Amino acid sequence: MRQLFGRLDFSFSVCVVFLCLSLYGSVSGSYVKYNTGGGIVEGKLNVHLVPHSHDDVGWLKTIDQYYVGSNNSIQGACVENVLDSVVESLLRDPNRKFVFAEMAFFTRWWVEQSVETQETVRKLVDSGQLEFINGGWCMHDEATCHYIDMIDQTTLGHRFIKEQFNYIPRAGWQIDPFGHSAVQAYLLGAELGFDSVHFARIDYQDRAKRKNEKSLEVIWRGSKTFGSSSQIFTNAFPVHYSPPSGFHFEVNGDYVPIQLQDNLLLYDYNVEKRVNDFINNATFQANVTRTNHIMWTMGDDFQYQYAESWFKQMDKFIHYVNKCQLLNISYCPPTEEDTPEGKSLVVVAYNPLGWNRTDIIKIPVNDANLVVQDSSGNTIEAQYVALDNVTANLRIFYTKAYLGQSSKQIPKYWLLFQASVPPLGWNTYFISNASGKGIWEIRNGFLSTMDTTQNGTIEIGPGNLKMSFSSTSGQLKRIYNTKTGVDVPTQQSYLWYASSPGDAVPQVCNIYAGLEVIMTGFSDTIVILSLLQASGAYIFRPSGPPNIQFDMLQVPLKVIRGPLVDEVLQQFNSWIYQVTRLYRDKEHAEVEFTIGPIPVDDSVGKEVIMRMTTNMVTNKVFYTDSNGRDFLERIRDYRADWPLSVNQPVAGNYYPLNLGIYTRDNKSELSVLVDRATGGASIEDGEIELMLHRRTIYDDSRGVGEALDESVCVDESCEGLTVRGNYYVSINQLGAGARWRRTTGQEVYSPLLLAFTHEKLEDWKASHLTKATAIDPNYSLPLNVALITLQELDDGSVLLRLAHLYEVGEDAEYSTLANVDLKKIFTGKTIKEVKEMSLSTNQEKSEMKRMTWRVEGDSRKEPNPIRGGPINNSTLVELGPMEIRTFLLKF
Amino acid sequence: MRQLFGRLDFSFSVCVVFLCLSLYGSVSGSYVKYNTGGGIVEGKLNVHLVPHSHDDVGWLKTIDQYYVGSNNSIQGACVENVLDSVVESLLRDPNRKFVFAEMAFFTRWWVEQSVETQETVRKLVDSGQLEFINGGWCMHDEATCHYIDMIDQTTLGHRFIKEQFNYIPRAGWQIDPFGHSAVQAYLLGAELGFDSVHFARIDYQDRAKRKNEKSLEVIWRGSKTFGSSSQIFTNAFPVHYSPPSGFHFEVNGDYVPIQLQDNLLLYDYNVEKRVNDFINNATFQANVTRTNHIMWTMGDDFQYQYAESWFKQMDKFIHYVNKCQLLNISYCPPTEEDTPEGKSLVVVAYNPLGWNRTDIIKIPVNDANLVVQDSSGNTIEAQYVALDNVTANLRIFYTKAYLGQSSKQIPKYWLLFQASVPPLGWNTYFISNASGKGIWEIRNGFLSTMDTTQNGTIEIGPGNLKMSFSSTSGQLKRIYNTKTGVDVPTQQSYLWYASSPGDAVPQVCNIYAGLEVIMTGFSDTIVILSLLQASGAYIFRPSGPPNIQFDMLQVPLKVIRGPLVDEVLQQFNSWIYQVTRLYRDKEHAEVEFTIGPIPVDDSVGKEVIMRMTTNMVTNKVFYTDSNGRDFLERIRDYRADWPLSVNQPVAGNYYPLNLGIYTRDNKSELSVLVDRATGGASIEDGEIELMLHRRTIYDDSRGVGEALDESVCVDESCEGLTVRGNYYVSINQLGAGARWRRTTGQEVYSPLLLAFTHEKLEDWKASHLTKATAIDPNYSLPLNVALITLQELDDGSVLLRLAHLYEVGEDAEYSTLANVDLKKIFTGKTIKEVKEMSLSTNQEKSEMKRMTWRVEGDSRKEPNPIRGGPINNSTLVELGPMEIRTFLLKF
Repeated sequence: MRQLFGRLDFSFSVCVVFLCLSLYGSVSGSYVKYNTGGGIVEGKLNVHLVPHSHDDVGWLKTIDQYYVGSNNSIQGACVENVLDSVVESLLRDPNRKFVFAEMAFFTRWWVEQSVETQETVRKLVDSGQLEFINGGWCMHDEATCHYIDMIDQTTLGHRFIKEQFNYIPRAGWQIDPFGHSAVQAYLLGAELGFDSVHFARIDYQDRAKRKNEKSLEVIWRGSKTFGSSSQIFTNAFPVHYSPPSGFHFEVNGDYVPIQLQDNLLLYDYNVEKRVNDFINNATFQANVTRTNHIMWTMGDDFQYQYAESWFKQMDKFIHYVNKCQLLNISYCPPTEEDTPEGKSLVVVAYNPLGWNRTDIIKIPVNDANLVVQDSSGNTIEAQYVALDNVTANLRIFYTKAYLGQSSKQIPKYWLLFQASVPPLGWNTYFISNASGKGIWEIRNGFLSTMDTTQNGTIEIGPGNLKMSFSSTSGQLKRIYNTKTGVDVPTQQSYLWYASSPGDAVPQVCNIYAGLEVIMTGFSDTIVILSLLQASGAYIFRPSGPPNIQFDMLQVPLKVIRGPLVDEVLQQFNSWIYQVTRLYRDKEHAEVEFTIGPIPVDDSVGKEVIMRMTTNMVTNKVFYTDSNGRDFLERIRDYRADWPLSVNQPVAGNYYPLNLGIYTRDNKSELSVLVDRATGGASIEDGEIELMLHRRTIYDDSRGVGEALDESVCVDESCEGLTVRGNYYVSINQLGAGARWRRTTGQEVYSPLLLAFTHEKLEDWKASHLTKATAIDPNYSLPLNVALITLQELDDGSVLLRLAHLYEVGEDAEYSTLANVDLKKIFTGKTIKEVKEMSLSTNQEKSEMKRMTWRVEGDSRKEPNPIRGGPINNSTLVELGPMEIRTFLLKF
Repeated sequence: MRQLFGRLDFSFSVCVVFLCLSLYGSVSGSYVKYNTGGGIVEGKLNVHLVPHSHDDVGWLKTIDQYYVGSNNSIQGACVENVLDSVVESLLRDPNRKFVFAEMAFFTRWWVEQSVETQETVRKLVDSGQLEFINGGWCMHDEATCHYIDMIDQTTLGHRFIKEQFNYIPRAGWQIDPFGHSAVQAYLLGAELGFDSVHFARIDYQDRAKRKNEKSLEVIWRGSKTFGSSSQIFTNAFPVHYSPPSGFHFEVNGDYVPIQLQDNLLLYDYNVEKRVNDFINNATFQANVTRTNHIMWTMGDDFQYQYAESWFKQMDKFIHYVNKCQLLNISYCPPTEEDTPEGKSLVVVAYNPLGWNRTDIIKIPVNDANLVVQDSSGNTIEAQYVALDNVTANLRIFYTKAYLGQSSKQIPKYWLLFQASVPPLGWNTYFISNASGKGIWEIRNGFLSTMDTTQNGTIEIGPGNLKMSFSSTSGQLKRIYNTKTGVDVPTQQSYLWYASSPGDAVPQVCNIYAGLEVIMTGFSDTIVILSLLQASGAYIFRPSGPPNIQFDMLQVPLKVIRGPLVDEVLQQFNSWIYQVTRLYRDKEHAEVEFTIGPIPVDDSVGKEVIMRMTTNMVTNKVFYTDSNGRDFLERIRDYRADWPLSVNQPVAGNYYPLNLGIYTRDNKSELSVLVDRATGGASIEDGEIELMLHRRTIYDDSRGVGEALDESVCVDESCEGLTVRGNYYVSINQLGAGARWRRTTGQEVYSPLLLAFTHEKLEDWKASHLTKATAIDPNYSLPLNVALITLQELDDGSVLLRLAHLYEVGEDAEYSTLANVDLKKIFTGKTIKEVKEMSLSTNQEKSEMKRMTWRVEGDSRKEPNPIRGGPINNSTLVELGPMEIRTFLLKF
């Protein structure tokens, strides 16, 4: 079997390698040239990989069906694919080799190839990359054949090989016949000129003895008459003609590939593990064979349907097994430093928006004896709010679940203070212990007061926006704004839809089982069938109207008050908790919900909504955003394009929210913004609802193959996922809501970015700019323009993207042409060149090609949209409503 | 979408094509250069094939797992395979095209490629073969994304494409998001520079209306603010983003490939059917779209794991659909000619053996008024035997089953006559109606007599070999030879083993469930486990000793006598029938068995044996052939190589027979030869048994996935297979059996070949040589040499293979050096060159290379085998015992 095989060798002195993980390695991979060459290495175990495909000339399918790959439901097998793809793979690397036995298939493939392909394949045979073994028409059985037929069919194949390739097979390859005949060994083996015969199947008792005695490889004298003159080297495989377990690499097979991008951080990196698997398997085989050469039969029945799948993995094994010394480096996670005595906690807040911005910074702390100083060293107002139990318990459970241990210290308070940060700039705040020395002794924190005993109506809100709650029921009654006079009686409740269980029989995965109705916001492809559709990951389909099984008449409520924020804490039931926050300087309510684990022990999936109910007369109309940009008018139970058949009165009116939802009547607007993608609807006039959490118990048969039932586990005990998030509620005079939605929407999307360190205040100030902006300090973007991208590219040029935030007609003042001066954004730099680019920055705007269409029915005159004029190498940029302009700048 | 696609066009004027099958076409295929080029054809329906793979950037698996193809048990998907194989396939044909969307995968693949591969791929992009569509990092969702993120991720991909390929994507490809947003259409579409956006999923009501109105393709104006200035051509697919049903071509997928070898005789040839499928599907789509251009999305989730599987089929469709005129030719099966008046049935018998041969020719005829004349015109002895009912019924049923109709005429008689044919020659016999004129009026047929009323012992046999039966029980009692004096009291019976049902639970296919015991003649790989093994296609495993449930005490028996043959007809039970024939000039009995349908209505599989029981003292020893060549000694319950643990006393002693089986004691030999591969054993001393038919009701879990339960159906009514075959029994003096076995074995393997026609005797004789031999008329091969191959090769040379038939020591006279003179075999030709070749004729014998081995324990002196000397360009060939020599001759 000289030169038949790709080869691996390794020493047995394998040392265990401890890996060092470089935490800041490159994420991208790179081209690795695998070293697949080499030869026999004396004194090592040499593992010969023999790539092969065992292609019965008719078994479960006919030979025709096997060749072209039809009737694959019987067996997935196409020999044409094997030969096509093996040839391609061999051409990719001259160290790759493949053996093929069945000439019935090969000759058929051969005559269908072009002359060019035939020439290429001849070279592969000449070089030994493609080797014919056995080489008869088929791998004949040995029990039930007459020797004349065996000779004839072998001659047919051998003469073809000789004529087309001038090649003479040297190895017998009878891997699958069930038992072996003496005539095969001496006549169709030795007398045929073979040096060896190889097979997998022998009597189990015989195999056991041979493994024990290391006599799987023998010289077989099959002929009483000829004796040693017709002997042949015979190799019975220790297990089978497949590779060791775990080393099948068939396309779509379930194997563990070597994952060896050079980035050890990748989750599935496994080179050492797989190399060790390899060594273990080779060692097993070496222990039952006599020499330090062993063969791995890398193939199986009709494998190599896509040969590259095998060769790629084998290349990697050859490369890495021949490589095991890696450097021993210890893995040393950074130790947690205690804040040294005398230092402050330095908080740097960055504002990615183009406007000056005032916002509340909120950090967990352990005592109420701190002072907060601004970048100038002035002490500023701060407020402490005690950490509530819900938050504390959530933290304990989730840190245990995701870090493996609970954090040792639960902070006692939230510390809140107000930060003011310039556009595209930062500001620095210093938090120090008031018990220290010097100026920091001036303490200015306000410990919030708890307010739980009031009767009647509770009004909260340190600023213009007020909310009033019933102290008896604990429920919201009214939202009003003392500055604008807008006053909206509002109820708020949590409810859940029972998820449709569908057929309530085991669901068939990956089959579109058909459906009765589907939600339209997330539309689908299938027409109506009679089967019931389950609610699940893809499909929201409630069983009926929402359930209010929580004790809505009596919501336990706590009120916390302070100079910066008032909070209302409401426990709606054991798994729904809400904190409403009204800030002194904000015109909206921030509402933090905590929902979960949703109980499903009653076998009912639940989809939890928050519903706000007002007395507004909204006439079926509400508005939801399109990807956070345009607001689209939605009319309940209506489609502009076709007469809607309302099969799902709830799901059919749900729309995705990325920015938010609002509705209005002839006086007021009620707007809700979200901090994440959420479903939203207005199922009755005056109402707005948000879908905040879902847990279902059936798969919806759309391919994901599992119910939407995420869980979190600690010590093998699992519970449903708990979600926590925010939404933001504002009431405005009719026509005034857009300003709040657009500005607040940008703030929600781009919160202040905080960075922390510990340092002495004086040292930090001496070495850092504590408050600054990248732009002209006297400049900020107009409120109707957002800077949405600012990125330095590899070549030093800068990608700038500006977006007008208002639609035409959306706001009387802001839906107009806006101006930005690039010079003032890049103050201190000289702009050499400004090019306006396409949106994705892959071509100049002026060079963009667009098809023009004659559109049917397009006779009406539409007004020309307002767009900014060409920049013409000036630095003044105009933006019309909704316009986004992209520039590449060179300095 | 210009130039994106491979293209098909066809006119609607499709005429139905009736195929003509050329019955003598070439069996081999040939290279077909598919015409995959072309362009738009006006006035026809243009079908644009768009090859694509929809590769979610994380769905059921992580992006890493999808890329490398791990965790394939969740989903068989490896994007690395997609990109590797697509590139290979595109390089094979410049007309092939492919679109790819997800840059998260592509960039990862890209950095792992060599510089050479990158250059190649750049050319594919430049030429338009590989086209990026969408081109963002992923195909983002449209319901739950913020527009800034959509822009950013698209920019990331687009800039990569621009930098590496200087290419700008033109088409939006949002095929899988569940619903579509206005911002996607106008901002991430039109404003991005896309001409079009394509998607699969829309509301089912909307789709139905659009299909009805042919408005699946529209101009979408997504922006209230920008109106027509941001419009985009939008294409909603009529069904999904997969191809029409039946046009998925994924590797290992269950599709019907176009099978288009140029041989229309191939069973699965289906070009016209598949082309019509194509047209039907295209017509459906054309009926719901507005123009004569339609797109087929040729791909699906993570398809193109092996791209060639798709491209190969698409090439064929493009080629054949664009080709629809084939020639109309009628299919005209040959009509059956009646034999014209005055003609004879001419029978030419060819003898492929190298010896002169006398044998019985037996043909079905309709009346007993015939004369048989030899090649000289002499009338020869003939015998008629009435056709029995079993044979008649079998013929009616099987012709109905396999030809669709029963033969109209059941022949009344078998006509037997003795033919004598020279070595490698032929003889001619003429069968004519005796009622005709002239010399043919001399009738010489003998109508066999029926002999059913005898009492006591019935002796039959017109020659030396006699058999005696009990006329009361109907059973065989004795075989004896009046010439040799050998006399063996013999019983014969049919029995069946009950098949082991295994676990008697549904069997798991394709899993080696383990087994308790296995038969050793057909050995296997698995060690002992506790699960029970079922008997089936691979495994013979009886439940216990054989059953004799047939009425063995009273076998209905008929005797037929005549000058050439005596017959004994025995009905063992309703489904086992046997005819024993003793010929005047043969020293053996020919036994024809007819077994089936084996009843399994008792849910017991049955494996039917014929057992001969004698009083011979055989001491556990019997002999079976190895592939019809060597006879190997078998010792019951014993293996030479290891101490056998006897778990299966029956199956463990079964061996395959191709030639036969014999046993012997100190006086006699009892030999049985078979006409097919059969299992055989000697379970008790003095016994020989043959396994003649098997029917099981459980799969044996070895991969074939079905029970060994073959059936034959007529008019949807099925019954188990009935088998009919022959075995041959001889008794000989000790040491004399080999001659019978070797000579008769060759005759059984190579029967006389008969050819028939109708012709006037005089005309035939005037134009044909009626009796001749290819060799010297005075020469024949020695009886210990067989000519096993004689074949004229393409280059005019002749392949000759001679085999010595005896082992060393097998026969006192014939196990010696034999001589053959090639000149006398090829008389009348001048032999220019004789080369001795290897067995499979792919190398000269003198140039064969063989490894030499030092063999452990090989100290004993073995005698040199007798082999013939080199031929040295003479024509005298020597053959030692068992030697096979192969020659190439030139004349």
